[in-house]
Amino acid sequence: MKNINSSDIDDSPKHNAFFISIEGIDGSGKSTNVEFIRKYLQDNGCEVIVTREPGGTPIGEQIRQLLLNSKSMDSITELLLMFASRQELISNVIVPNLKKGISVIADRFTDSSIAYQGGGRNIGVDKVAKLFSLLVPNITPKLTFLFDVPLEIAVKRVNNHKTKDRIENEPVDFFKRVQDVYYKIAEEEPTRVKVIQTNQSIPQTQAIIVSYLNDLLRHS
Amino acid sequence: MKNINSSDIDDSPKHNAFFISIEGIDGSGKSTNVEFIRKYLQDNGCEVIVTREPGGTPIGEQIRQLLLNSKSMDSITELLLMFASRQELISNVIVPNLKKGISVIADRFTDSSIAYQGGGRNIGVDKVAKLFSLLVPNITPKLTFLFDVPLEIAVKRVNNHKTKDRIENEPVDFFKRVQDVYYKIAEEEPTRVKVIQTNQSIPQTQAIIVSYLNDLLRHS
Repeated sequence: MKNINSSDIDDSPKHNAFFISIEGIDGSGKSTNVEFIRKYLQDNGCEVIVTREPGGTPIGEQIRQLLLNSKSMDSITELLLMFASRQELISNVIVPNLKKGISVIADRFTDSSIAYQGGGRNIGVDKVAKLFSLLVPNITPKLTFLFDVPLEIAVKRVNNHKTKDRIENEPVDFFKRVQDVYYKIAEEEPTRVKVIQTNQSIPQTQAIIVSYLNDLLRHS
Repeated sequence: MKNINSSDIDDSPKHNAFFISIEGIDGSGKSTNVEFIRKYLQDNGCEVIVTREPGGTPIGEQIRQLLLNSKSMDSITELLLMFASRQELISNVIVPNLKKGISVIADRFTDSSIAYQGGGRNIGVDKVAKLFSLLVPNITPKLTFLFDVPLEIAVKRVNNHKTKDRIENEPVDFFKRVQDVYYKIAEEEPTRVKVIQTNQSIPQTQAIIVSYLNDLLRHS
């Protein structure tokens, strides 16, 4: 299937529709920066929506409840539910918006499944990647920000949450495996994936984000 | 992964644990015969449980509600949710029971996904079969009963239901595609899959079922 990104949606009324995904382990500072990215793109003339995973559609939000609130769950079930939630998002939100010329910032996308279920749950990166290529339309973010901090800082941040969901409750080893897969993806796809350290001042982090966004805007 | 069936569960306290699946389009007379098969096996000394799909576990029942009651759903989402529900059933019910020497009658199993989503939803039989071999432990029923009636009779029976779920509401063409895939599976796997016509008297149908069950019991 054809890749869907800003460059090949010729029937769209606007042409600067970007598909950007935001990745990182829990506590990496990911969520803090999503709003900054959305605002920066808007200030630069883009119409933008933000999606989150799992969830973001009526069926997806029900799947989210199952995923985060069930006491225990088979790892393959978890993987399949993540893909099911994403499928609703792709077909009902991401593709229709990109086609209308509206940029999409996805707070988590397929890299999350590869890292969390492939790595964290030990299902295997190859198996998840095969599932991805078998079922999901070939829709790849133009740019992926991978937010990163040393593992011990991420764990401390998550431990400060009042309540933790089923996945946030996993032991440190789990997040170490997730982070390792993220690093591997970033190493293999340096053009798409930009690693952003959040263990620095917010203005420093934002200056780096802005430089990548300006690159994207310039080449659109 | 190794096939799980009665012959290779050496640590089970009993040895006549069968895994039997029951298939057929809606209105084929499938449900009517599940109870007969369960009783016949019990009367012949087997401990038996019956599972149903989608559902059969706490998470699976919530997925069932989503699958049957949502107004609309992407076909790939439907496929993934069917597999997710089945995965919970396999890991929490089917495998543990077979290991304890308890026979399992599965009211729908993977052939349903191949027929309904692969055929009915036009996802493609090969794609669903690939998903199956990628994700699902290699657990194959020893015997599959495919209940069958002419399509127009099945449709009439379903139309007599007071309320129909999302899948039962599909047009006749959909069930024609499902039935065609079922016939193809039966043709390709005659040893496992036995087609049982239900457009005859109940005693006639049951006599044929009994002959297959007796074969199974004799060779256990």
